[in-house]
Amino acid sequence: ISSPITEMDQDNLSVVLHSAGNLKLENRSIPEPGPNEVLLRMHSVGICGSDVHYWQHGRIGDFVLKKPMVLGHEASGQVIKVGSEVKHLKPGDRVAVEPGVPREMDEFFKSGRYNLSPTIFFCATPPDDGNLCRYYVHNANFCYKLPDNVTYEEGALIEPLSVGIHACRRGGVSLGSTVFICGAGPIGLVCLLVARAMGASRVVISDLSAERLQKAAELGADFPLQAQKESPAELAAKVQGLLGCLPEVTIECTGVESCIQTAIYATRSGGVVVLVGLGSEMANIPLLNAAVREVDIRGIFRYCNTWPMAITMLASGKVNVKPLVTHRFPLEQALEAFETTRQGLGVKVMLKCDKQDQSP
Amino acid sequence: ISSPITEMDQDNLSVVLHSAGNLKLENRSIPEPGPNEVLLRMHSVGICGSDVHYWQHGRIGDFVLKKPMVLGHEASGQVIKVGSEVKHLKPGDRVAVEPGVPREMDEFFKSGRYNLSPTIFFCATPPDDGNLCRYYVHNANFCYKLPDNVTYEEGALIEPLSVGIHACRRGGVSLGSTVFICGAGPIGLVCLLVARAMGASRVVISDLSAERLQKAAELGADFPLQAQKESPAELAAKVQGLLGCLPEVTIECTGVESCIQTAIYATRSGGVVVLVGLGSEMANIPLLNAAVREVDIRGIFRYCNTWPMAITMLASGKVNVKPLVTHRFPLEQALEAFETTRQGLGVKVMLKCDKQDQSP
Amino acid sequence: ISSPITEMDQDNLSVVLHSAGNLKLENRSIPEPGPNEVLLRMHSVGICGSDVHYWQHGRIGDFVLKKPMVLGHEASGQVIKVGSEVKHLKPGDRVAVEPGVPREMDEFFKSGRYNLSPTIFFCATPPDDGNLCRYYVHNANFCYKLPDNVTYEEGALIEPLSVGIHACRRGGVSLGSTVFICGAGPIGLVCLLVARAMGASRVVISDLSAERLQKAAELGADFPLQAQKESPAELAAKVQGLLGCLPEVTIECTGVESCIQTAIYATRSGGVVVLVGLGSEMANIPLLNAAVREVDIRGIFRYCNTWPMAITMLASGKVNVKPLVTHRFPLEQALEAFETTRQGLGVKVMLKCDKQDQSP
Amino acid sequence: ISSPITEMDQDNLSVVLHSAGNLKLENRSIPEPGPNEVLLRMHSVGICGSDVHYWQHGRIGDFVLKKPMVLGHEASGQVIKVGSEVKHLKPGDRVAVEPGVPREMDEFFKSGRYNLSPTIFFCATPPDDGNLCRYYVHNANFCYKLPDNVTYEEGALIEPLSVGIHACRRGGVSLGSTVFICGAGPIGLVCLLVARAMGASRVVISDLSAERLQKAAELGADFPLQAQKESPAELAAKVQGLLGCLPEVTIECTGVESCIQTAIYATRSGGVVVLVGLGSEMANIPLLNAAVREVDIRGIFRYCNTWPMAITMLASGKVNVKPLVTHRFPLEQALEAFETTRQGLGVKVMLKCDKQDQSP
Ligand SMILES: NC(=O)c1ccc[n+]([C@@H]2O[C@H](COP(=O)([O-])OP(=O)(O)OC[C@H]3O[C@@H](n4cnc5c(N)ncnc54)[C@H](O)[C@@H]3O)[C@@H](O)[C@H]2O)c1
Ligand SMILES: NC(=O)c1ccc[n+]([C@@H]2O[C@H](COP(=O)([O-])OP(=O)(O)OC[C@H]3O[C@@H](n4cnc5c(N)ncnc54)[C@H](O)[C@@H]3O)[C@@H](O)[C@H]2O)c1
Ligand SMILES: NC(=O)c1ccc[n+]([C@@H]2O[C@H](COP(=O)([O-])OP(=O)(O)OC[C@H]3O[C@@H](n4cnc5c(N)ncnc54)[C@H](O)[C@@H]3O)[C@@H](O)[C@H]2O)c1
Ligand SMILES: NC(=O)c1ccc[n+]([C@@H]2O[C@H](COP(=O)([O-])OP(=O)(O)OC[C@H]3O[C@@H](n4cnc5c(N)ncnc54)[C@H](O)[C@@H]3O)[C@@H](O)[C@H]2O)c1
Ligand SMILES: [Zn+2]
Ligand SMILES: [Zn+2]
Ligand SMILES: [Zn+2]
Ligand SMILES: [Zn+2]
Repeated sequence: ISSPITEMDQDNLSVVLHSAGNLKLENRSIPEPGPNEVLLRMHSVGICGSDVHYWQHGRIGDFVLKKPMVLGHEASGQVIKVGSEVKHLKPGDRVAVEPGVPREMDEFFKSGRYNLSPTIFFCATPPDDGNLCRYYVHNANFCYKLPDNVTYEEGALIEPLSVGIHACRRGGVSLGSTVFICGAGPIGLVCLLVARAMGASRVVISDLSAERLQKAAELGADFPLQAQKESPAELAAKVQGLLGCLPEVTIECTGVESCIQTAIYATRSGGVVVLVGLGSEMANIPLLNAAVREVDIRGIFRYCNTWPMAITMLASGKVNVKPLVTHRFPLEQALEAFETTRQGLGVKVMLKCDKQDQSP
Repeated sequence: ISSPITEMDQDNLSVVLHSAGNLKLENRSIPEPGPNEVLLRMHSVGICGSDVHYWQHGRIGDFVLKKPMVLGHEASGQVIKVGSEVKHLKPGDRVAVEPGVPREMDEFFKSGRYNLSPTIFFCATPPDDGNLCRYYVHNANFCYKLPDNVTYEEGALIEPLSVGIHACRRGGVSLGSTVFICGAGPIGLVCLLVARAMGASRVVISDLSAERLQKAAELGADFPLQAQKESPAELAAKVQGLLGCLPEVTIECTGVESCIQTAIYATRSGGVVVLVGLGSEMANIPLLNAAVREVDIRGIFRYCNTWPMAITMLASGKVNVKPLVTHRFPLEQALEAFETTRQGLGVKVMLKCDKQDQSP
Repeated sequence: ISSPITEMDQDNLSVVLHSAGNLKLENRSIPEPGPNEVLLRMHSVGICGSDVHYWQHGRIGDFVLKKPMVLGHEASGQVIKVGSEVKHLKPGDRVAVEPGVPREMDEFFKSGRYNLSPTIFFCATPPDDGNLCRYYVHNANFCYKLPDNVTYEEGALIEPLSVGIHACRRGGVSLGSTVFICGAGPIGLVCLLVARAMGASRVVISDLSAERLQKAAELGADFPLQAQKESPAELAAKVQGLLGCLPEVTIECTGVESCIQTAIYATRSGGVVVLVGLGSEMANIPLLNAAVREVDIRGIFRYCNTWPMAITMLASGKVNVKPLVTHRFPLEQALEAFETTRQGLGVKVMLKCDKQDQSP
Repeated sequence: ISSPITEMDQDNLSVVLHSAGNLKLENRSIPEPGPNEVLLRMHSVGICGSDVHYWQHGRIGDFVLKKPMVLGHEASGQVIKVGSEVKHLKPGDRVAVEPGVPREMDEFFKSGRYNLSPTIFFCATPPDDGNLCRYYVHNANFCYKLPDNVTYEEGALIEPLSVGIHACRRGGVSLGSTVFICGAGPIGLVCLLVARAMGASRVVISDLSAERLQKAAELGADFPLQAQKESPAELAAKVQGLLGCLPEVTIECTGVESCIQTAIYATRSGGVVVLVGLGSEMANIPLLNAAVREVDIRGIFRYCNTWPMAITMLASGKVNVKPLVTHRFPLEQALEAFETTRQGLGVKVMLKCDKQDQSP
């Protein structure tokens, strides 16, 4: 069903953000891969909250849109051309794309934390273009071959899954950990999947939305907890009540100040609060409580070193991300897809970029 | 069905080893708990390879039987009397017994590695008596209450399971790890269960016995590998062939020199070989190969800090140890039970010590 | 010069806090050691900011003085009587006292983080008596023999030094680390000593007081930085200017909100802010900045597992704490000594509790 | 005194190994830097035991000389030309050279352990040329600018120092560690320097040679221990006798089998043996002793992520490597220099490659 590898469309339909609120589908030229790059025919690209945020606000923190930018960074596709130096990939390979590519061999890269490199390239973070388009060129070292039994959509979902992996790793989730996750959006849900796969014994997950908690329960949450008007201390007490103890690891996936407060109160002495959710610049938090109980507070910035491992997990069937996809749109209907995400409908919306193959 | 908590038998039938080859069932007096102790009515006690080894040889390494000793250290039972200082347990509580109890507050205990304390008490390690008997007194801080949905046998199996937990922790098994386990005896199998629960993506397990590998496959091994006449390097190549890469963690559970050699060759650069199997004093190994590839070699000595976590895993159903039990005998038939283990039949043989309640 | 070991004074002069502002010298009876305890003739006891805080306010956070309490927890003395079970100490031994003694063998104790045990005994934390007195009984396992070349005052200073050790350990200070310390009070200064001993390449230390920075420079600070009216971001920029880079580890030893803010801005991506200073319950901090740069925030609660190691460091001469002592008073003049500390004069004030031996 | 940056000699005198035993000084052409490279005028290059080993044997393990190769990998020099993409260096910069440069962005490189990358370029490891010559081209990302107060020779010594840093890091040397180093050759001595700088409280160092131990004592070893005819267990007992306890970390720097045995016996339970010395393929060692005491065995392969940190240590004066240099020869006398090292005279022999500037 898929188009012959070498045959290319004339057009390169792309989802381009011109300014806050001004999102367009337009045709761009098909780029040529450099020596270490590959040209991909994009297949499946998920829409992320950050894509929507750029669309709505034209910026996220210090990253400000200054010129038109292609959106999209949760992606997979097929190699159709390889640069002169590329050895591990060939045309026809199906790959998942890691959107962050370090540009400099600085101390962060050399020591294995390339996500912290200040000059990193990152798809759909101004000024770097993303991959919500038909044809896209990427550094070959950050494209990972998918085995036959891993679908393109699973490949695209490695991006959000990686956030969960990095969060759980930084939180030290391990066999028998009790875990509290604040927020059951896409990111809270991948944290749930990963925490369970890492051996968490019991997971409490909170959200305001009963629907999202319902999804969390389907994905294996032991205790969905609908937050209402409780104070942070009260919510923490509820978490303790459900588990019979305080959790060792709390993963905050809302960015909301009161949730960060809850996260601290709810975490066991000697434990860890992982900050995944991105909120406002300043936060007023019970820092003394965390400090004297040696509850560590660790943020995450995206991820590093997750793709190869995520692929083996998906291939082995030990993590199942498929239920996260709730909506699919052909690339031509990108604006409707974005509107769907903006309204918070479902969990993950997928754009299907390959005209010949819209399968998962 | 179980006997009233306060009603005690007159006898305290015990499995006592008098000297190599000389194992007897005899009656001992029922001990009184000290202030920090509890008196237990034993329910289920598994037979371990080391019990059989003491029976056959009267010693393991430097631990030499010098006076009659009760065997058994994989145990669970019911509290029937508590010492004056005990607060967290009460008569009627069902508990799993951690057999190692540090005697001194030395540097090892204070820093959380109490298993390394040279003066530790350990059930059925000369000269300390074990708990293969009807009534047994133990330090209350090392008895852990079982929830209702965890059976006594599961409670007893926490002991071997703890070896697997400690091995996998020391090996750094984590999400996506590829793991190679040498030996599919009871210890290899618990390592398998734990590695999977910790998120290992794929596990190769080797043994000489097709039957044991069959069990391993039932318990979730991805690649059972029957070792035959291959050299260590050849076997390592087979492991690599099965996985498509070298595993990051190898857990050696045979103690056989050639297996340790295989373990080193088979492990990825930067990975870990965990030595669980206990072999001869000296071993001839490809140490240079390990050193220049930074393959770390880490032994384990039993375990520490595993019981509470193991109980939550069992209670949550995330680890299933029940299939390990292949034989059951009433305490009165202890000698037949020992003979069964000696012959290597099945996996785990359970002795049922409570006359009134022989349920799992 | 010192009194014979067995000869005891009739009195047990003690520094007792009755209520906020109400500190008295009074006579208490000489206690008898229990089986695992030793009776000490106190020699040197340092005054800590927390002692002064209890005196001034009658409380620290949730710890509220409800009945008269002996102050003091930075202490050393001589064993004059040992309990029946004590083996590693004998009368005549000179010892340093670790003031925190876990009461329960809970998960924190078993896993080597006994300082987090919620029921821990701690000298001069309500309701537990301290050791600013002539005769004092303590758990023998938390008394450590001093070699002949370590003075009693050095022994007493192990307590504040331990705060520095625990802080630097939690911060991951290692060879070549660049370190920023906020606050050059006694605690900031011990962090400085420890950071240097652990191999820090360069240390910036800030304070409001030029005098304290002068002391810091004497103790080896590379860059003393007098804070004035700068904003947190400006101060962070100054730190960067001095080092030519952001420090990897920042140790906050003031508890002041603006200093915590500075600490975050000043720390390199991927680095650590250690919260030693204890401030108000809530703090308004640039948490997003920390989170997206993966700057970890780790508090400390006292210390654990520091005494034996500190003693070897002092004995080897590799850390020199002697310059910290700026004032000495005989126990009889305890009130003047407290007043000296309250006024922030010098660094560490020592009370000399042994009438026969007031040497360092 | 140094030659103008742009003026180049016509010749590029180089120390070339043609085959075992066949070392020649010959003229090679001056290479041109690629886009990411710099051309260096070499200043100081130390001779390493491995250089001598290649000269004597034509191979080390699997690395076999197949074509003429320039020797030398402990080097510093001056930038005289930069490639088109190089931003952080400019002609005139004085730099230290990290000889290992990963060629592929593989899993090892991405995760911060690039020294384990199987395809790494490494100076003077067949088939890669080293830098014992007048002009040499190197990847700019692995050349590190030296501050004015760090000499070229210190710059060159960062290479062996890095072995010590990596060894001590892998051994977990920290504040208060007691350390045993086997072998007081150049590598044992840098381990000593680093262990002390990391806060080791006491260091025992053993060697056969009284002269080398004398040097070790000058460099700060607390207990030089001359090994004679003792068995490994006897030597271990001597180490314990000197320290009053077993050391937590042993760093084996001889590669001799009996020393590895001693290292295991001598290390405290729960401690680490670091294998730096490279011996024969197979080693017969008391593995059971290590395993049941959880003494970890960790090899090292060179180093990674050490140069920037080493430079700050040298610049701050906190580590002094200057006494390691005992001999200096102009490049023209390379063969005498090699002969000096071969005879084990002194510690480090430096070749001075810049005709105009032979200063340290
Ligand atoms: N740190 C990183 O590298 C990184 C990467 C990806 C996403 N993020 C962040 O993670 C967060 C979650 O992402 P997402 O895509 O799941 O967002 P989302 O908005 O879809 O989900 C957030 C969820 O939190 C819930 N929530 C809001 N207020 C709550 C409250 N008071 N109590 C409980 N639940 C509450 C919402 O109902 C929603 O379901 C966002 O802040 C995003 O910016 C961070
Ligand atoms: N370190 C510890 O704290 C600790 C604790 C418990 C057990 N152990 C040790 O773990 C080891 C395993 O215990 P177990 O009870 O499972 O023993 P077991 O004897 O039942 O199992 C060993 C398995 O290894 C297999 N085997 C033997 N030679 C082999 C070879 N060449 N290749 C592949 N497989 C081979 C055997 O067929 C057997 O199935 C024993 O050495 C035991 O002493 C150590
Ligand atoms: N976490 C723990 O276990 C633990 C243990 C001991 C002490 N502490 C805390 O550590 C802190 C320091 O203790 P200490 O005895 O050194 O106290 P201290 O009051 O003597 O020293 C604090 C120093 O901070 C300086 N300072 C105040 N505001 C400043 C600012 N804006 N910028 C720079 N410097 C400023 C002061 O001038 C003073 O020198 C206290 O908060 C104490 O409660 C914590
Ligand atoms: N792993 C790595 O990455 C790496 C890097 C550099 C060097 N090395 C290795 O480190 C080792 C040391 O290097 P070096 O340059 O110092 O070598 P060297 O030969 O100069 O020093 C070895 C020292 O060990 C002493 N020695 C020999 N037998 C001994 C014994 N039985 N007891 C005590 N001391 C004994 C010798 O007298 C000598 O002083 C070599 O094996 C080298 O190959 C490894
Ligand atoms: Zn995203
Ligand atoms: Zn056992
Ligand atoms: Zn104090
Ligand atoms: Zn070298």
